[in-house]
Parts: sequence; C-alpha cells; structure tokens
Amino acid sequence: MRLSSHKDANHFAYPLDICAQMNSDYKVTKVFALPAAESDRMEEWGGTGKKFDRRKIHSGSEYHPDLQTERRETTTPYQVVQPDGPSFHIEGNLIRWEKWRLRVGFNYREGLTIHDVSYDGREVFYRLSLSEMFVPYGDSRSPYPRKAAFDLGNNGAGVNANNLQLGCDCLGSIKYFDAYHNTLSGEPLKLSNVVCCHEQDDGILWKHTNFRTNNAVVTRSRILVLQTVITVNNYEYIFAFHFNQAAEISYEVRATGIMSTNPIPIDAHVPSGTVVAPGVLAPFHQHLFSLRIDPSIDGQKNSLLVEESHALPFRDPTVHNPAGIGYTTTKRIIEHETALDTDVSTARTFKLINENILNAMSGTPIGYKLVPHYSQMLLAHPDSLHARRSEFGAHAVWVTRYHDCELYASGQHTMQSAGGEDGLASLIKSRDEGVRNEDIVLWHTFGTTHNPRVEEWPVMPTEKMMVSLKPVNFFERNPAMDVAISTQAANKSVLVDGSRCCGKA
Amino acid sequence: MRLSSHKDANHFAYPLDICAQMNSDYKVTKVFALPAAESDRMEEWGGTGKKFDRRKIHSGSEYHPDLQTERRETTTPYQVVQPDGPSFHIEGNLIRWEKWRLRVGFNYREGLTIHDVSYDGREVFYRLSLSEMFVPYGDSRSPYPRKAAFDLGNNGAGVNANNLQLGCDCLGSIKYFDAYHNTLSGEPLKLSNVVCCHEQDDGILWKHTNFRTNNAVVTRSRILVLQTVITVNNYEYIFAFHFNQAAEISYEVRATGIMSTNPIPIDAHVPSGTVVAPGVLAPFHQHLFSLRIDPSIDGQKNSLLVEESHALPFRDPTVHNPAGIGYTTTKRIIEHETALDTDVSTARTFKLINENILNAMSGTPIGYKLVPHYSQMLLAHPDSLHARRSEFGAHAVWVTRYHDCELYASGQHTMQSAGGEDGLASLIKSRDEGVRNEDIVLWHTFGTTHNPRVEEWPVMPTEKMMVSLKPVNFFERNPAMDVAISTQAANKSVLVDGSRCCGKA
Repeated sequence: MRLSSHKDANHFAYPLDICAQMNSDYKVTKVFALPAAESDRMEEWGGTGKKFDRRKIHSGSEYHPDLQTERRETTTPYQVVQPDGPSFHIEGNLIRWEKWRLRVGFNYREGLTIHDVSYDGREVFYRLSLSEMFVPYGDSRSPYPRKAAFDLGNNGAGVNANNLQLGCDCLGSIKYFDAYHNTLSGEPLKLSNVVCCHEQDDGILWKHTNFRTNNAVVTRSRILVLQTVITVNNYEYIFAFHFNQAAEISYEVRATGIMSTNPIPIDAHVPSGTVVAPGVLAPFHQHLFSLRIDPSIDGQKNSLLVEESHALPFRDPTVHNPAGIGYTTTKRIIEHETALDTDVSTARTFKLINENILNAMSGTPIGYKLVPHYSQMLLAHPDSLHARRSEFGAHAVWVTRYHDCELYASGQHTMQSAGGEDGLASLIKSRDEGVRNEDIVLWHTFGTTHNPRVEEWPVMPTEKMMVSLKPVNFFERNPAMDVAISTQAANKSVLVDGSRCCGKA
Repeated sequence: MRLSSHKDANHFAYPLDICAQMNSDYKVTKVFALPAAESDRMEEWGGTGKKFDRRKIHSGSEYHPDLQTERRETTTPYQVVQPDGPSFHIEGNLIRWEKWRLRVGFNYREGLTIHDVSYDGREVFYRLSLSEMFVPYGDSRSPYPRKAAFDLGNNGAGVNANNLQLGCDCLGSIKYFDAYHNTLSGEPLKLSNVVCCHEQDDGILWKHTNFRTNNAVVTRSRILVLQTVITVNNYEYIFAFHFNQAAEISYEVRATGIMSTNPIPIDAHVPSGTVVAPGVLAPFHQHLFSLRIDPSIDGQKNSLLVEESHALPFRDPTVHNPAGIGYTTTKRIIEHETALDTDVSTARTFKLINENILNAMSGTPIGYKLVPHYSQMLLAHPDSLHARRSEFGAHAVWVTRYHDCELYASGQHTMQSAGGEDGLASLIKSRDEGVRNEDIVLWHTFGTTHNPRVEEWPVMPTEKMMVSLKPVNFFERNPAMDVAISTQAANKSVLVDGSRCCGKA
C-alpha cells in the first residue's frame, strides 16, 4: 500500500495484511489473511481475525528524495579524472587491460559472465559466472514458508539488470556494454548499458622502505571493474568482477534496496524478524550465492588441492618440534566429484592446480586459490523443500567434472522445482566422475544470514561480500613488480592545509 | 647480503647461512651456522657443515625500480579532484566529517589511535586502537623457534611509522598529521606526516529502482580514511580506519613489504616454507593482530550480547515449524570477563549493546556489532613460549572490564616476556569481574596464516584484512537516507566511446 500519492512512495512500507493467490491467468482465486502474531499457527492459509493497526505509520519509511525532510549538504563533489583516458582497450566484447585479456558475456539468466581470461598470455579461467542465488525466509508461520526466491533461475539476473546511468553507478571514465534479449514474439530486445566497465584506484598495491637508506618505493593499485546492478522486485544486487595488476580476481556482491516486509501489529514482536518501523516486520532470511568458477590453469586439465595448516605434534619423539612452535601443511588432492566445507580453524585453502606444470621457483604445481567468503550455510532442514531445491546451500565448495550446459547450481528449471534432479548434490550422486587432472568446475556457495537491522530501513546501506581468486605459485615472482612507481607528478594530489579546513568549519 | 652495489639492492634476497648472536652492547658473542635441510635437527644452535649454493641467484629478487628490466607503461594517470575541497573539517586533532566527530591520537607504541567517536551527536566509541601484533614463524629448526616478533610491544607502530609523501600513499585531497616522540635525552622529536586523512569514493552506498515507475535513486558512498603505514624491518603494514556515511567503521590492515627469509640449498625443500627464489626460503608464519575496541554505546555502561542463528526443530510437536524452514536467534549476554570464539556455522554475532536504552522501532537494546575477520588462531602449542607470551592469539574475541592503562593484549612488557602476567588470559584469570552493564572493552584477535606464495616475492602485493563495526538497532532508520543523490552534474564522469578505445588498442 502506498500512503502518499507520490508515485515513488515506498510500497513496501505499508504491507497489507492480506495475501492474494492467483492462477496462471493472473486471476485472483483466493484471498488470505496474514498472521498477526507469533502465536498464529495456521497449518492452512487463513485469517486469524486479529487486526493490524496503521496509526503509527510515519514518514521515516520513505526513501525517495522528494519525500525526505532532511538532506545533508556537507559532502563536497569528488571527481575522478583520467586526462589520457582509461587504460583499457575494448573491441566488441574483448577487453585488454594491463596484462589481462578477457571477454564479457551477458545472458537473460546469469547476467554478466566472464570468458577466456588470460594474464600475460597465460590462460587462467575459462568462464566465471554467478550460477544461482537463493533467498529463503525463516518465518515459519504460513504462508511465509513459501517465500523463497531463486533470483537467477526464477527471475533472471540478465532481464532484471538496470540500465546504468553515467555519473550515478560508476565514477570516472566509463564504458558501457549493451546486451540483447528477445521479446515474446522473438524480436531482438536491446538491454542498454547493462554492464559498466571502468578503472578504480585501490590504494597501495605494494610498498617497501629500505630502513638503511630510508628510500621508499610505493606503487598504487589500479583495478578494472566490470559491474552490473539488478533489481529483483524490492531488492538490489550489485555484482562486480575486479581484476588487479597482481593477477588477482575478486568478485564483489553488494546487497541493497528495500527489504521484503510483512505486516505486524503495533508493539508486537516475533522471534524470526525485526520490527523496523511501526507495523513493519522485516523477516529473517538468507542470501546464498553460487559462484561458478571454470578454471583453465594453463590448460583445461586441472585438479583441486585442499591444503590445511596444522601444528606439528609437540613432545612426540618422532617429530622435530622442540619448542612446540612448528607447523606445516597437509595436502589432499580431490579424486572424485564432491562437496567440501570451509574451515577457519585449519585455514583450509582450496587451490585449483595444474599438476602437469611445476613452478620453477617453488617446485610445486602452478595454481590459483579460492579466498572464500565465510558464510553460514542453509538453515532450512535437509528434508525441507527449500533444502531439496537448493542443494548447493548445504556446502561451501563443490567440485564437478565439466559437462556442457551444466551452468546452474540448482538445476536448469528452478520454478516450482521439487529438487532431486539436476542440483549439484543430485548430479554428483548420479555419477561418480573423476576430477583429478580433468576438465573441472568449482562452485563456491557463500552469502549472508540476514537478520535485519533497523538501520537497513527503508533502503539498506550496501552489505558487501567478497570472494577472491589469487595466483599461488603460478608466476615466478610478483607479477606486479613492473607497475609504475607512484608519483605526485602523475597523481596530482592536493595538500590540505589544516588551518584552511578549520576556517571552513 | 647485497649482490648489487646499488644501495637499495634487496638485502633480504640473499640470506646468509650464518647467524650472529650479540650481547646488549651490540658485540658479537657467537656465530652459528643455519640449518640447511629438513633433516637438520639441531637441539642446540650449531652448524651442519652443509653448503649453501648461490650459483642460481637471479635479478628477479630485486624490487627497486633502478634494478628492474621491465616496467609497464600501460597504466594511464588517474586523479581525484575535489573542486570545492574536502568535506572534512579539522581543528588540531579534532575531525568533523559528515555526522562524525572524533579525535586522532598517536603514540610511539600503538601508532594511530581514535578517540571520542560520536555520530550525529551520539557517542559510539571511546577509543579504538591496534593493541598488539604477534608474528610467530612455524619453522621448528633451531634457531628459528626464536623468530617471533611483537611488532607493537617490541618495535612500536608509532616509532616505525612512515613519513608519508603527497601523491604516493594516498590519492586526492590529503591532510597530514604530525606526531611527537622524544629523543633519548628527552627532547621532543617530531614525526612528520605519520597519519594521512582523506576521502575516498566507495562505490554505491544504496540504490533502489521502483519497478513500477522505473525511477532509480542511487547514492554514492564517501568514506573518510585515516591511514598510517609502518615499516618493521622487512615488512610493511598499512593500517586504516574507514568511516562511512551509514555510521559504520571499518579497520583495514594491508600487509606488504618483503618477507623475512632464510637460506636454503638449491633444489632443497622444507615442509614449513616456500622456496620463492633459488636459495631463498620464505618460511610459514602467522600475523595475529589485536584490535582493542573500547565502546561507549550512548554511554559507558555497555554489555556484550552473543547472538546465533539456529534452525527451529523440525517435526517437534512443541515447535511450530511445519515446513522445516524456520529459524531464529539465540541470545546470550556475557556476565563475566571471558574469551570467545567466532563460529561461521551459527553466524555467531558479537553485539556491543546498551541495555538501558531500547530502540524505539525494534524494541531491542541499541548496539553496534563486530563484523570479525575470520582467522585461524595461533598454531603454536598452548604450552609453548609463543602461546604463553601471546595469550590473545588463542581466541578471536575477548571482553574485559575497563581499567586504566590496560591497553596491550600481551601486556605492558613484551620484550623477552615469559607470559603469564598481564596478557588477556592472565588478567581475566587473576580476577573475575562482571562485564554486564559495565564499562567494558572488546578485543578482537584476527590475522592470517601466511604460507608464502612465489607471487609475494620480492615484495608482496597487499594482503587485505577487514574488520567492521556496524550499528545494529542503534538508529531509528538508515542514517544515510539523507545522503545526496548521485548525479552526473556533481560527479562529472566521462563516457568512453567503445570505438575510440578500439582505435587506441
């Protein structure tokens, strides 16, 4: 319900206490009353007769600038200037930047995809993509257990991608990519500005001061950002691949937008949600993402090495550890398709390696490691429909043999799926293929258990999650040693005089 | 040893196979031979007679620009312009920026400290500081078990702070802070430019597109960065506090510089280190930081609430969870000083709350939560000297009652300490003070188990770690709702024409 006549009044701010059921012809077939209190234990949809109350509805739930009473004017302009233009070179969907070479893809379902990634002429990844996203809600009162969205499989990250605007979504020198979808009648449909490409300064890349001469050498980190923003009804997601000069790739997810809300009587509370405004309940939920990583570490024949750091035994006469301080790594190469968990306590590390090529310095196989985003996995019971449909939510790391068209962690058809067919666990169970020195795919499940804060209402400050892929004994030295030294001549920073600042205060 | 006559030749690149012992008058009292192979099991320091070999020493171990054979020239200049100056206001050590008000401190030991932090007139933190850093090495061969530095207690983050240079360490409009130490004779010693203060663009702060009107509202995130860089012999650390417009504080640590090295015979390998160049072993080690967080969440009387997300029981007739998807939080307020662990599997959350003030929306105590950096804790055996000296390395979160002068997680005197006196565990053991609704201090241990990569040689690309403090039901809505809407008029981004880019390629 919108309280104001303004067209951009927040229609999630006044959740109705009814819920309509429609059939596939968009006809309402039934209207249900929503539960009003924790004690509402409806096995079937139905009303409780309890009244909701809108007396305390207030303007704090509006987000549109027209509807704000306060607007801070303290933030001075901040501009990024690249007098010689950006450092990237683009031809069609081919991007060359620093020593990277890659192709940008886009489709209705996954949105932004990255292909054929090489650094300094060496292949590193064949394809990087967001495979799926699952958003289950944790409120057990009917009808809320139905609330669980596959934002890629059901909605599509591509069709929901924003038309990005110059000067709003990115800062600096921006190249936009368009994409094409099709209309229902098969005509091409242009999706304009769905991906933006730009550079960012990322602080210090490396620095060393020789304490004997006091000479400092410092380089600044430049990153290439490929970003897309999607709106899925109430929520926004900002997905970005970052490439840096040290041959590292990061995947950043930012969650923002408006939380999905339920009505709640004034002064009531429930154990699976936060009251963010009078009458407005933001229920607990999870966001689980599956990042699909198809490596080609100097070729397609790759393996997954699981490494852990363990203390050496102390006071064991067979082990040399007299001071009790020794530690080393255990290494296990995964032989068959499987699911694995992260383990902070052992600093468990997942390395995609090429066993056929040894690093000339370390003498170990070349590789790239996954730096995971540590996350709680799916909370829904393993027997629940949620868990059966989103098998990838049970573990943080999955490794499978490559097969054409296996792109989706919850399978091809997620809409009303019952699970058990082509989700990751089902695929692995249905076959037992080797993944050592084969063409393999790594899937990383990560996300957030989102128990809302009042500060996330009416629009959330971005919640950031970051996953990285870093070379590990792939190169023969730091690949960023040749980056230009940071100088004032190029950077043109401005010294701020403290007293002048004071004067402005 | 330096191989080149250049004064900035890398003197960590050719580690000698001897080690000198000095007395307190800096006189060499003994010379030891370093172990050459894994099988060297010296209970006492002594030589093995094995020879090291320098035949394969190569120029890849040099980092200074004068000694590089390649230099990339592909990165175009990137400048940050603030035509109206920065948004911050500084008077002495007082900074006002957006709705923040805080004071910058600096001392020889902790380096940068932050004091009296308030947002929009409400106190949030009394003092934020890096309390200690411990860097133990994991090579069990003598004499390496002695290798374990307290970089604050033994060396000092303040006295080792870099004199920052305009245009090198930060980009944009930079205000520098000086600090004062003293000479051995008691004269004041000025440490110039040891802290830099500047603003950064931090991407999208919040965004929402109304899918009914297709109107997008987007704000960009501006952050205030207070940064200091220290050189501790071979290593560099970049410490930065980030303040954002949504009342969040982050503490970022970047590790860079040169890894501490040991000699190793050509073609030899050991299980507790990586050969990063011929004859150069970079041994496994850990970096454990203790961030000291002294809260004042709307006053000094605070508590620590530990919250976890747990699935509701399924098929339990006493619990309403018919679909098996329900989850809720458990809450436990800590009564006495103690150590706690992180737990990704339960999304364990540490909230600093003020039980005396309830949020008008959520009806729950106001607070700030710790977003930890998930890290493996100390690997050294609990009975080892390392563990006894660095008690804070055993657990990720510690809560104590506030006492004057209790600033250091490993105690006042770390140099040659034997532990057991005023480290966090010893302090807690020696008293059993209440921490509920009292003046309390939270200590967060985090870091990295650093098993070196060849890519980190000769200078490491920065390894980032991030800890955050976010308001949780402290405000009555998103405190950044009043941030100006992002516009091209202010941001002056530049559209990059794809074909022009092509032409440059």
